[in-house]
Amino acid sequence: MNIGLIGIGTVGGGTYRVLKDNASAISNKMGIDIKITHVADKNLKLAKDTVDKDITVEENAFALIQNSSIDTIVELIGGTGVALEIVRKALENGKHVVTANKALIAMHGEELVKIANKNNVVLAYEAAVAGGIPIIKAIREGLAANEVEWIAGILNGTTNYILTEMKENNLPFDTALQQAQDLGFAEADPTFDIEGVDAAHKITILASIAFGIPINFEAVHVEGISSLSQKDISYAEELGYRIKLLGIAKTDNSNVEIRVHPTLIPEKRLVANVDGPMNAVLVQGNMVGPTLYYGAGAGAEPTASAVAADIIDIARQSMLSNKTLIPTLGFMPDKIHKKNILSIENIFSEFYLRLTMKNKVGLLAKITNIFADHEISINSMVHKEVKENNLNPDIFLITSKTKESDIDVIIKEIELLPENIEKIVKIRTEELK
Amino acid sequence: MNIGLIGIGTVGGGTYRVLKDNASAISNKMGIDIKITHVADKNLKLAKDTVDKDITVEENAFALIQNSSIDTIVELIGGTGVALEIVRKALENGKHVVTANKALIAMHGEELVKIANKNNVVLAYEAAVAGGIPIIKAIREGLAANEVEWIAGILNGTTNYILTEMKENNLPFDTALQQAQDLGFAEADPTFDIEGVDAAHKITILASIAFGIPINFEAVHVEGISSLSQKDISYAEELGYRIKLLGIAKTDNSNVEIRVHPTLIPEKRLVANVDGPMNAVLVQGNMVGPTLYYGAGAGAEPTASAVAADIIDIARQSMLSNKTLIPTLGFMPDKIHKKNILSIENIFSEFYLRLTMKNKVGLLAKITNIFADHEISINSMVHKEVKENNLNPDIFLITSKTKESDIDVIIKEIELLPENIEKIVKIRTEELK
Repeated sequence: MNIGLIGIGTVGGGTYRVLKDNASAISNKMGIDIKITHVADKNLKLAKDTVDKDITVEENAFALIQNSSIDTIVELIGGTGVALEIVRKALENGKHVVTANKALIAMHGEELVKIANKNNVVLAYEAAVAGGIPIIKAIREGLAANEVEWIAGILNGTTNYILTEMKENNLPFDTALQQAQDLGFAEADPTFDIEGVDAAHKITILASIAFGIPINFEAVHVEGISSLSQKDISYAEELGYRIKLLGIAKTDNSNVEIRVHPTLIPEKRLVANVDGPMNAVLVQGNMVGPTLYYGAGAGAEPTASAVAADIIDIARQSMLSNKTLIPTLGFMPDKIHKKNILSIENIFSEFYLRLTMKNKVGLLAKITNIFADHEISINSMVHKEVKENNLNPDIFLITSKTKESDIDVIIKEIELLPENIEKIVKIRTEELK
Repeated sequence: MNIGLIGIGTVGGGTYRVLKDNASAISNKMGIDIKITHVADKNLKLAKDTVDKDITVEENAFALIQNSSIDTIVELIGGTGVALEIVRKALENGKHVVTANKALIAMHGEELVKIANKNNVVLAYEAAVAGGIPIIKAIREGLAANEVEWIAGILNGTTNYILTEMKENNLPFDTALQQAQDLGFAEADPTFDIEGVDAAHKITILASIAFGIPINFEAVHVEGISSLSQKDISYAEELGYRIKLLGIAKTDNSNVEIRVHPTLIPEKRLVANVDGPMNAVLVQGNMVGPTLYYGAGAGAEPTASAVAADIIDIARQSMLSNKTLIPTLGFMPDKIHKKNILSIENIFSEFYLRLTMKNKVGLLAKITNIFADHEISINSMVHKEVKENNLNPDIFLITSKTKESDIDVIIKEIELLPENIEKIVKIRTEELK
């Protein structure tokens, strides 16, 4: 089996190393050797410095795609520019493709899956979601006998590191972000991570393979953590909750929700205790119940571990037959159906609200009456003690399960009260059980 | 594909239900229907009452094994008596076998794997370890590119439920066990669970597929939780640890450790926070780092979820070829090698010790001198305050990493001191990082 690796950067270099350093362990499991035979990178010098002398090195990626001796292309350039062209052409040329590129699959997966199916080749993307955690395999194969009811995942290590630091060391967002950048957990331009886009790419992919729906990135509701206040993290803790940036996908069979936003989770839940740059995905199957998968969501070796697992899977099934074993999106292509995706106003959730209001006699009565008028109950509520220099102490509460549009009406009414000072903070809350 | 199910009890009934209730979801993933076609149970009436009219029901399991129209046998009787005979004959007759029987695989796996290989059929056992968690698939396939360095798992839900109750509600072992029995989490005869035998069956299997060594149940060092005192759980908590019954397998490539015993784990570790009857397996790969897999380790539907996943895997690969895709024990049969298995005296661990001694002047000096003489350091130590009616307050401590035989020498020396009242309690401690 000849394997062409395109992009010898962090993950590409890691993949080369994993297959080389663990060659004997892998060969003992496979009965054959698995080896990168060709490498392409526009930085030809870097490529030559990274790989052994007996590997064919090219500057032009398309030389590998046109090479008929190569069976499998490993795309590790990233992005949706030239990577899209490379993967598309490779599949059209009848080559299996392994990629770690979440943006590519989330935004162009529909087209690429069709090309892969048409050409009877494998398009593998384990490394695109949650790095080294074998979550695609767990859902498509391990839980294949289940109907997946919902998924809730910490899918971005950068934001989880920042949230952990904000909580543990009482840091404001900006300081925690700076620290993440200094330590290499966040990029110079952190927008994709902190605004939830990266997590949204990943939950898009998971929703598709879990529910048998087309890949539809546009349908995801996305909120990041950049406007999150340390205060809300502390208050959540007082109520027994942690705040995590979750990718959430749910279905009741007729409707689907796909969303990424900061979420309060009861501190007792295992996923609430996933700290630092780690990832974890909680999957609820209708037979197995809750299962959780935890590990490193990024980094050269962990991501390479998943890329290499995909290569091994392809090699194993190529030894058996030239047909593909598992449908690319978990379900047979003709069984993938669109389902109605709920807009965010139509989802049901509990809500954490924080109010900043002038402390006058009768204020709490006014607020609670608004909730009562709308027949929405309050599960817990804290009115911080009035102290010197703090005439407008915070009020925070968690509602019962409510339609989001109904909460928005209540928020508007409260914000119209003369006592109201600031915009009300609203954070969704999930019990995850 | 004709599938014969033998044993229509809890898990058997669950498997029948999963494949029936989720038939359309499964068919959407497979492109074909997966259906139990034959059932055998010595309770013929129960079998007939459980399954639909169109299923062939037999009293004699061997009728299914001799039926040449059946491709796959699902053995859900349990135990190592008739189940061994059934699985052996089914494999010899060229049938794939799916089983949830951990005792069978742990004690007779070597023989059965050989028969499966010889007859080129699949022997699948995902449900035998950690119930619904797809841990066999994660290790054999998802982490295939890794050398597994160690595994530490909560592999028995009964004991984890008991330990959780002992900790949360300050119960003695006997009360917590009684409660587990009342709630159906423990059997009338709980010996296999509480003495660690069930967990030992499972870690035996995991060690084999992780390290490429023969299945060798006899080599496992096994200690249960029946002599564990609530006091030690509280003291561990004071030191920042939780006590869990862990199945541990480690290798440094030349030596292997396989053991089951109560273990102190830092409370910060995710696996320390797995409570109630749930299971979790922490797997350290040399490339991916730590990964954790969590879910229900028992129960009809969760176990059936894993049994059904194995059936689906067999069906998928049968559609491709009549060759087997993945070697039964993860490694190619000729690459499975015995490694030296360390006896418990030769392992290295940190140790929690609890001493019950008469409180005399110079006692602590005597004790700490014994450690100093053997050049073993103490990481933390608590001498409970002397109060009225408590002339012999407890002393507990955690040592640095030490060879077990060296600690045993120290324990003997301390127990020979005239102040010593009771046998010293020793519990191994793992940092799990």
